[in-house]
Amino acid sequence: MPLVVQKYGGTSVGTPERIQNVARRVLATEHEGNSVVVVVSAMSGVTDHLIKQARQVSASPTDREMDVLLATGEQTTIALTAMAINALGGKAVSLTGAQAGILTDGIHTKAKIANISPRRIRKYLSDGFICIVAGFQGQTLQGQITTLGRGGSDLTAIAIAAGLKAHNCEIYTDVDGVYTCDPRIVPTARKIDVIAYDEMLEMASSGSKVMQSRSVEFAKKFKVPFEVRSSFNTNRGTIVKEETPGLENVVVRGISVERNQAKVTITNVPDKPGAASRIFTALGEAGVIVDVIVQNVSMSGTTDISFTLNKDELEKVGQVLDDVVKEIGAGDIAKRAGIAKLSVVGIGMRSHSGVAARLFEALGKGGVNIQMISTSEIKIAVIIDEGKIVEAANLVHEAFDLANA
Amino acid sequence: MPLVVQKYGGTSVGTPERIQNVARRVLATEHEGNSVVVVVSAMSGVTDHLIKQARQVSASPTDREMDVLLATGEQTTIALTAMAINALGGKAVSLTGAQAGILTDGIHTKAKIANISPRRIRKYLSDGFICIVAGFQGQTLQGQITTLGRGGSDLTAIAIAAGLKAHNCEIYTDVDGVYTCDPRIVPTARKIDVIAYDEMLEMASSGSKVMQSRSVEFAKKFKVPFEVRSSFNTNRGTIVKEETPGLENVVVRGISVERNQAKVTITNVPDKPGAASRIFTALGEAGVIVDVIVQNVSMSGTTDISFTLNKDELEKVGQVLDDVVKEIGAGDIAKRAGIAKLSVVGIGMRSHSGVAARLFEALGKGGVNIQMISTSEIKIAVIIDEGKIVEAANLVHEAFDLANA
Repeated sequence: MPLVVQKYGGTSVGTPERIQNVARRVLATEHEGNSVVVVVSAMSGVTDHLIKQARQVSASPTDREMDVLLATGEQTTIALTAMAINALGGKAVSLTGAQAGILTDGIHTKAKIANISPRRIRKYLSDGFICIVAGFQGQTLQGQITTLGRGGSDLTAIAIAAGLKAHNCEIYTDVDGVYTCDPRIVPTARKIDVIAYDEMLEMASSGSKVMQSRSVEFAKKFKVPFEVRSSFNTNRGTIVKEETPGLENVVVRGISVERNQAKVTITNVPDKPGAASRIFTALGEAGVIVDVIVQNVSMSGTTDISFTLNKDELEKVGQVLDDVVKEIGAGDIAKRAGIAKLSVVGIGMRSHSGVAARLFEALGKGGVNIQMISTSEIKIAVIIDEGKIVEAANLVHEAFDLANA
Repeated sequence: MPLVVQKYGGTSVGTPERIQNVARRVLATEHEGNSVVVVVSAMSGVTDHLIKQARQVSASPTDREMDVLLATGEQTTIALTAMAINALGGKAVSLTGAQAGILTDGIHTKAKIANISPRRIRKYLSDGFICIVAGFQGQTLQGQITTLGRGGSDLTAIAIAAGLKAHNCEIYTDVDGVYTCDPRIVPTARKIDVIAYDEMLEMASSGSKVMQSRSVEFAKKFKVPFEVRSSFNTNRGTIVKEETPGLENVVVRGISVERNQAKVTITNVPDKPGAASRIFTALGEAGVIVDVIVQNVSMSGTTDISFTLNKDELEKVGQVLDDVVKEIGAGDIAKRAGIAKLSVVGIGMRSHSGVAARLFEALGKGGVNIQMISTSEIKIAVIIDEGKIVEAANLVHEAFDLANA
């Protein structure tokens, strides 16, 4: 019998009614002739409530105890989901991460999955049960409860799909799939039917937060194709899978937009080894997350280094860099918020030239000034004024004809 | 180092502030030079909330899933309690029932403890940790999550105290201990310093619901002395332990009062084998819990059988017994609510005669009519009008001089 792994996020199981809705979907999948393993998150709001309770008893709870606490969220959902399925005449059984055989390392609150031993899931499946597995959690070999950190339930689903060699892995969320661009920005944006892992990764790291990158990376590593789809309708979603020659026919798969960015330029950085390292080491140690970094060729013994970051991080930069800039003998620090990043992503770029030209031409037509450019093998990102981002996204979407499949 | 096991009930850990209060008590116990294992219940209200959620997704959730669901309540408390202790500079670690080595049979929602393997608790204690153990829960040898039913957290504490040969086991609750009578009824009632297991059992089964009988029975079986005391003050409580010659010097330890009782009398029951059995089998099958049963000597070929029960159960009796009474050829069923039970309890009764006489004399003086009498080796119970119960309790309390130690 084909095996389907389905994962439902916190919004999809956010109320008893929604859990019953999930139960109906699961049973429908079973009635189509599949074995089903369901991975669920904590009901939306529950994890926040638990974190609030922790803060009320401790200013800095240990990671170990946070894991014991947070793991109750998913454990509640698995029991309720199994009950809901049983109430509809199905035959379901709940399994905690530990019971499901999710073995992790011992790094509490951000554990990595070390191994899956799905012996117990297999047994229940062969006895005709639907297995409801707690996402986001596992245990160490020593029996300590761990959690996998952000996006952990997706990871659980993909790991189980890999471990059980599932035929399908469906990640249910509150959006219909991955779009060619955010439909709130580009009204003609279209749902993408199939996307390669690397494209999904670039879209995610460029602001399309349908899934955390680590889950996509995990799926890529273990070659698990999966489908991102909505739990609130029955539309097909977006299939994420390995590259195939067919996938390369499209040059640009989608456009990713990230607002609320800021840029920092350090002028007259002496053009000698170690200067850039000093800057970014200091930022890294202060926990400032830097996105795009650009340094142009030096023509005069000094150079300008620019980088972007979330505008909320901008305030920290002065504190961190003022001394460093003096020490290395650089000039000023220029800071500016009010910028945005637009990225075009597509594995077809590798074999098609002219993508950059077409992108810049579209932006030029609209009078959009490009402040920074950064490229990867399958992505070109430009930094522009935030006020121009909607116009720019629509122009580029049209230039690459993304509204038409 | 002496080992103390402390158990805190749902009211004692009902809010973050109360958990912090518990943390301070635990640390104070440690600072006195003890190793400490703490057993906690779910925060008050949490279990009811979970049950409500279950009812929202299923009219009749399976017992297995109820256990998975309810076990999250105590798991939340252990994490928060460990955090609170750590925040105060202590060194605590939380353990679920499974992690603490509480092995049970597989009867979900009312599992029995089969074995304790406290290897992990011992290791943490020897590493200088305070262990915070989830009460009420365990796991089977096959790794299924189970719960122990009502009073389960007390049971966990006593089982751990037995398994670890603890020096002290303290059951913290919202009352100061066991009293000679309910102080709301008898203002001169006095806290009992020491009570024998059997006395505690008779007090519990006679309405003094400080603890469930099964926990006391378990403690008696494994010879674990324990102390019932309040988590809201530092008063010494009541020590419950094995009989000693000294304990027998007191004839009556206390008085237990149970209101809201009803009595049923079946008249003219043919005095032949099987008649009583038919009646009480029918009641048992209908789930009616009968308390006192009295049948007097037959003088005329028929007899009257009376029994008491909670008045809320009275309505069921007619439905259950109407047919049975006809079948066995008995007379009428007389039902009456508005009665109460008063019991005097004491292991000293065994060797002292005259207890019944003194009891009846006290009641007679107050004009209290005795409707039924039932005795065990260490208890005499009388059924009287509920309207007379306060007067009766005070008279008897005085007759046995219970206000003075």
